[in-house]
Amino acid sequence: MNTAVLERVTLAVDCMGGDHGPSVTLPACRAFLESHPGAHLILVGKSDALAAAAGWPRCTVVAASEVVEMDDPVEVALRKKKDSSLRVAVAQVKPAEAGQAAAQACVSAGNTGALMAVSRYVLKTLDGIDRPAIASVMPNERDGYTTVLDLGANVDCTAEHLLQFAVMGSALVAAVEGKDNPSVGLLNIGEEAIKGSESIKQAGELLRAAAASGHLNFHGNVEGNDIFKGTTDIVVCDGFVGNVALKTAEGLASMLSNFIKQEFTRNVFTKLAAVVALPVLNHFKARVDHRRYNGAALLGLRGLVFKSHGSADAFAFQMALNRAYDAARNRLLDRVHDRILETLAEMPAPSAEPQTEPPALAASR
Amino acid sequence: MNTAVLERVTLAVDCMGGDHGPSVTLPACRAFLESHPGAHLILVGKSDALAAAAGWPRCTVVAASEVVEMDDPVEVALRKKKDSSLRVAVAQVKPAEAGQAAAQACVSAGNTGALMAVSRYVLKTLDGIDRPAIASVMPNERDGYTTVLDLGANVDCTAEHLLQFAVMGSALVAAVEGKDNPSVGLLNIGEEAIKGSESIKQAGELLRAAAASGHLNFHGNVEGNDIFKGTTDIVVCDGFVGNVALKTAEGLASMLSNFIKQEFTRNVFTKLAAVVALPVLNHFKARVDHRRYNGAALLGLRGLVFKSHGSADAFAFQMALNRAYDAARNRLLDRVHDRILETLAEMPAPSAEPQTEPPALAASR
Repeated sequence: MNTAVLERVTLAVDCMGGDHGPSVTLPACRAFLESHPGAHLILVGKSDALAAAAGWPRCTVVAASEVVEMDDPVEVALRKKKDSSLRVAVAQVKPAEAGQAAAQACVSAGNTGALMAVSRYVLKTLDGIDRPAIASVMPNERDGYTTVLDLGANVDCTAEHLLQFAVMGSALVAAVEGKDNPSVGLLNIGEEAIKGSESIKQAGELLRAAAASGHLNFHGNVEGNDIFKGTTDIVVCDGFVGNVALKTAEGLASMLSNFIKQEFTRNVFTKLAAVVALPVLNHFKARVDHRRYNGAALLGLRGLVFKSHGSADAFAFQMALNRAYDAARNRLLDRVHDRILETLAEMPAPSAEPQTEPPALAASR
Repeated sequence: MNTAVLERVTLAVDCMGGDHGPSVTLPACRAFLESHPGAHLILVGKSDALAAAAGWPRCTVVAASEVVEMDDPVEVALRKKKDSSLRVAVAQVKPAEAGQAAAQACVSAGNTGALMAVSRYVLKTLDGIDRPAIASVMPNERDGYTTVLDLGANVDCTAEHLLQFAVMGSALVAAVEGKDNPSVGLLNIGEEAIKGSESIKQAGELLRAAAASGHLNFHGNVEGNDIFKGTTDIVVCDGFVGNVALKTAEGLASMLSNFIKQEFTRNVFTKLAAVVALPVLNHFKARVDHRRYNGAALLGLRGLVFKSHGSADAFAFQMALNRAYDAARNRLLDRVHDRILETLAEMPAPSAEPQTEPPALAASR
């Protein structure tokens, strides 16, 4: 496998996406360019909104006349707004005929359903992949990250889909974190192989077979708490289950954070205690700051697409740019492609799904 | 509906169950008796282990010669250990022929799979219920509780099962929290009715129909974060999804708690800050103390069975006793029965499942 890094990386950025648009994306792009002296950006959006970026070094502005709103139905993004910043940005990672793509990865904070549908339509899926998946990282007790997929692109996943997610997740972690043989856990409701639904049990069998032939480092079943324990590098699950787990964790974190604030602002004594504890609390807060984990990968497409949280601020959006840059520089697309070929060559051929009418994305985020 | 409280409540306690057995259950029972002057207990276990309880007021000791271990397979609990403390305790809530049951609810910290299987075998399910469910509460931002079910007894739930869970959950919250018409949310990956798998969409239709005929207060779809926001009183989900959500929350809470400890013990300055912040941190800790939420209800059986966490300490086990007492005193069993009759009378008859060979419980906890 070719593990040399790409010397020149260009990212295409949908500057209009997300809750805040250019007021967040432009400062993030500026900061990103400053911290990555070798990187190039293609900024996509309405010309007037991007006027501030004129003359920035290593930067090209590409005009797009439309914007996909956060609440636009997938059909509108796909069929009506053909000159949207989201779609034009995604198109930058599609290779020209017999040529190179303008960019090696695309980043958007736009509506997840629209981004997945447009990416799937414009870029198509890789051979051997039925359904692209959304992968993101969560912090763990080992002070590392656990990569979880799928987080909501697919419901009712079959065992073959889960195997494909495991292969793609392994390629992602190998590329971005430099781990040669990352471990994979299958999210279940008990460690024993007999637990879970039929499709989960079958997925366990496929994953064990892939591990036996040396293509995957399969740990076995894991449970919800293992995501935060860091038991495995990767946790594979159905998109419905992954989305519920992610949002449950977000909800709990938000509640605990509010409770801590309430406790420290209860009266004058607790406020004094807060002043004394502030440096410690800030250190804790930075450690679990969800903005640091921003940037989900849409895996299984013939091009790299990264999704920032819609509510991301400039710091969070810059993290998504960093993540896309690292993935592109480490040739994630080639790695996913190679791993799929290696692993799936020995597996039963999955049924092909039509690509011209991508289904609406299962989850909103 | 008869909402008068029961004047005399007796709980049957499996004193041998859990990681700690009588060293935890007996002190908890003693404290419970002191705080509930009208309550009676039937303590079940090995005679020598329960010798300390001889002569306690309002207390009967019933001997059982065997103990279901935490790692015993369900088959062992069901077919080999017929004189286990778990089974004898469950049998106390089964009415004698043409008579009363010895106890109105049973509490055990034993192995969840064994408890569900034995309860299902000894007590049978209520008419109209295909599968019993496990319901427990999680804290929410409104300083209340959200009741979630199923937490792992069933995987691959149909729409009808989810409707049954909604009915049983409503009866539980009405009985224990005194809310006449508690709201029900269907756990999904988006608020829109078109989201989710086929069975979830069908469940949405059944729940809307039940709401339209006045039998349920159905709010609509909710997402994982709504559990902790307290958007609805009850959240209904497949046991696989519920178990993953519960364990994910447990894992995140454990990680955050460890991180806070690490930050406050980093050096002499942070330790000083900890001393100052201690009262505030302790107040926070008490507020989110998971021991306060101990005691899951096994709903849908012809008798009330409550499951304590296996690792519960005496304080947590006492909370499970309190919960079982409140449910029994408020005639939870009658309420579940009445609500099922009311709601399901207008629904398509669910397919009956055989009761003599209860399937192994899906999840371990």
